[in-house]
Amino acid sequence: MAKKSSKASEELVEFGKKLVNDVEKGRNPNVDIPIRNLSNVTFDKKTQLLKLGSKSAKRFFFNVGHTKKFVQTLEVAKITKNLLDVGKHASLRDVFYMAKRTIPNTKTNIVDEQKETDKAIEDLELVTDNSRELLHINANKMGSVAGNVVIEDKGDTIDWSKLGSGGWSIPSNVEDIKFKKVTSKYVIYMEKAAVWERLHEDKFWEKNNCIIMSSQGQSTRGIRRLLQRLHSEFKLPIYVLTDLDPYGLYIYSVIKFGSISLAHMASELAIPSVRFLGITTDDVNKYELQKHFIKLKDIDLARLKQIKEYQWFKNSKPWQRQFKMMKEFNSKVEIQALSSKGITFISDKYLPEKIKNKEFLE
Amino acid sequence: MAKKSSKASEELVEFGKKLVNDVEKGRNPNVDIPIRNLSNVTFDKKTQLLKLGSKSAKRFFFNVGHTKKFVQTLEVAKITKNLLDVGKHASLRDVFYMAKRTIPNTKTNIVDEQKETDKAIEDLELVTDNSRELLHINANKMGSVAGNVVIEDKGDTIDWSKLGSGGWSIPSNVEDIKFKKVTSKYVIYMEKAAVWERLHEDKFWEKNNCIIMSSQGQSTRGIRRLLQRLHSEFKLPIYVLTDLDPYGLYIYSVIKFGSISLAHMASELAIPSVRFLGITTDDVNKYELQKHFIKLKDIDLARLKQIKEYQWFKNSKPWQRQFKMMKEFNSKVEIQALSSKGITFISDKYLPEKIKNKEFLE
Repeated sequence: MAKKSSKASEELVEFGKKLVNDVEKGRNPNVDIPIRNLSNVTFDKKTQLLKLGSKSAKRFFFNVGHTKKFVQTLEVAKITKNLLDVGKHASLRDVFYMAKRTIPNTKTNIVDEQKETDKAIEDLELVTDNSRELLHINANKMGSVAGNVVIEDKGDTIDWSKLGSGGWSIPSNVEDIKFKKVTSKYVIYMEKAAVWERLHEDKFWEKNNCIIMSSQGQSTRGIRRLLQRLHSEFKLPIYVLTDLDPYGLYIYSVIKFGSISLAHMASELAIPSVRFLGITTDDVNKYELQKHFIKLKDIDLARLKQIKEYQWFKNSKPWQRQFKMMKEFNSKVEIQALSSKGITFISDKYLPEKIKNKEFLE
Repeated sequence: MAKKSSKASEELVEFGKKLVNDVEKGRNPNVDIPIRNLSNVTFDKKTQLLKLGSKSAKRFFFNVGHTKKFVQTLEVAKITKNLLDVGKHASLRDVFYMAKRTIPNTKTNIVDEQKETDKAIEDLELVTDNSRELLHINANKMGSVAGNVVIEDKGDTIDWSKLGSGGWSIPSNVEDIKFKKVTSKYVIYMEKAAVWERLHEDKFWEKNNCIIMSSQGQSTRGIRRLLQRLHSEFKLPIYVLTDLDPYGLYIYSVIKFGSISLAHMASELAIPSVRFLGITTDDVNKYELQKHFIKLKDIDLARLKQIKEYQWFKNSKPWQRQFKMMKEFNSKVEIQALSSKGITFISDKYLPEKIKNKEFLE
């Protein structure tokens, strides 16, 4: 399934040839770039994915308003092609510094800020139909994983079940990983590394034959791609374990539906079938977690209001019920509040019961 | 070197027995707790470590001003003893929730905020002379490592040279790791995961027979303990690679000398012989990095002023020269600025040359 980087290289060459052709034909060199903002993003009910609409804008070389962005996109295309040629990867920050140079005999820099190269990279993702990862540009590295899985990566065979207390450190780019053996039956992804260490010490993944994966806070693209590959290539169900708070729900929402700014990558990154296994308002009542309420801040309430209105939550009765109760609670509850019931309560009772009784939200 | 957790359990029992003895003798039960603030922290020039002075304060059970803290310390001692008994570890947050309960027949909670249990844990570190890790309380998990090292952890044999693009994910607690084989000759610790991925892809650790280790931002206790163990048990030199900015220098300072709030743990955490391999003001001139200057913010300038006055930097001519030039530059320079010289410049030239020519600051 995964596209290959060699393909990306070809597509960059095609992109260059098109521009050379424009020049040779005496045309004003131009690139057709889909518009990436709310006005051009829709939620596809059938695929349950955010989708970029058909609106696009032509960007011309000979146009005072376009030239700079045009040149930036080309500069980043050049950098990317070089990376692919030498088989190296760069971070977003590296690409910024590689593009940051003064045009000879002028005082004009090609880029002044990283957001300019970041935008140019997004342009290239769209123009060449390759993810940033396939263009050899990596996002952040974060997170750990353990489970009954054997992979091959960079010539090494790595057994995720034999990595001591640390686990495998998830790289920023997981496109070239080969899965040799996957016997785990599902994946639990959690937002907190401390909760991962809890489940790992309790041998949760061994006892329940699953994979445990964590970041620290918002998930990275590397993590989302790894989850997506495990889901699409091995049909593993994915459960997301977060706090009961608007930020936790946002993390869940991004993994499930994608984010507006990356709508063009939704089919590569989003996983519509993931389920929410985090703390619910019903758990609060069932396990009497009210005493561990932490009052919501204004910023949390604003986010809750926003999430409630997301198209994919708007018509969901179970979710609207959760939001309503959260509003009434006016409080959040952290996963670690379960530790008040005993240090291994989460591993011995909370998670196994919820999974067995299918007590998750979709 | 590493103390064992069984010892910690004994010392907690001793602590309990002392209090029982107080009760039996009709004395007001009390704990003698060293004072942990600037007034009681000195810099020991001989050991080059921050050191807690001899000032301490007695805390009594029957004293309206002391009772709550006294009970909190005891509650955390109980939680810790339980963790040791069942062989489980907990995070700081877990301990907070485990201690957060209402005293029967009252409306008083034992703790209301995590900082109360955090303080009680620090008390116990001092009273029992055991680090938090030995008391089975873990801090954050973060960071990756690769190199020519084989360890044994939780019954698994883990080869840090055979873990693909990800590396080993460093656990929050490294006390029980056994080093089976360490052939690497030195360690480079870097603040940025993206730089770690750069060096890893370039096979830097293989070509230079070293260990590469990273966090994301400030180093965790797990990382600092791992660095310290590699240094004290295998005499490996440790180099710290950060940006040229006050935050980078602060990260270096904490690893080298310890921090004021953890002065009582300095001998377990600080590594006085670490060297600074990050970007220097001289590198800026040598590699013409001025064009990548990023203006310092007020908060950076305030931190720079503070660092300049640290006792361990105050009398260092090389460091004072760096600080003076940074002030003149009024700018910071990121490690990734080196990518403007070519994506593998840092691996092929910058680091090997600096290490060969011993161009580091101490």
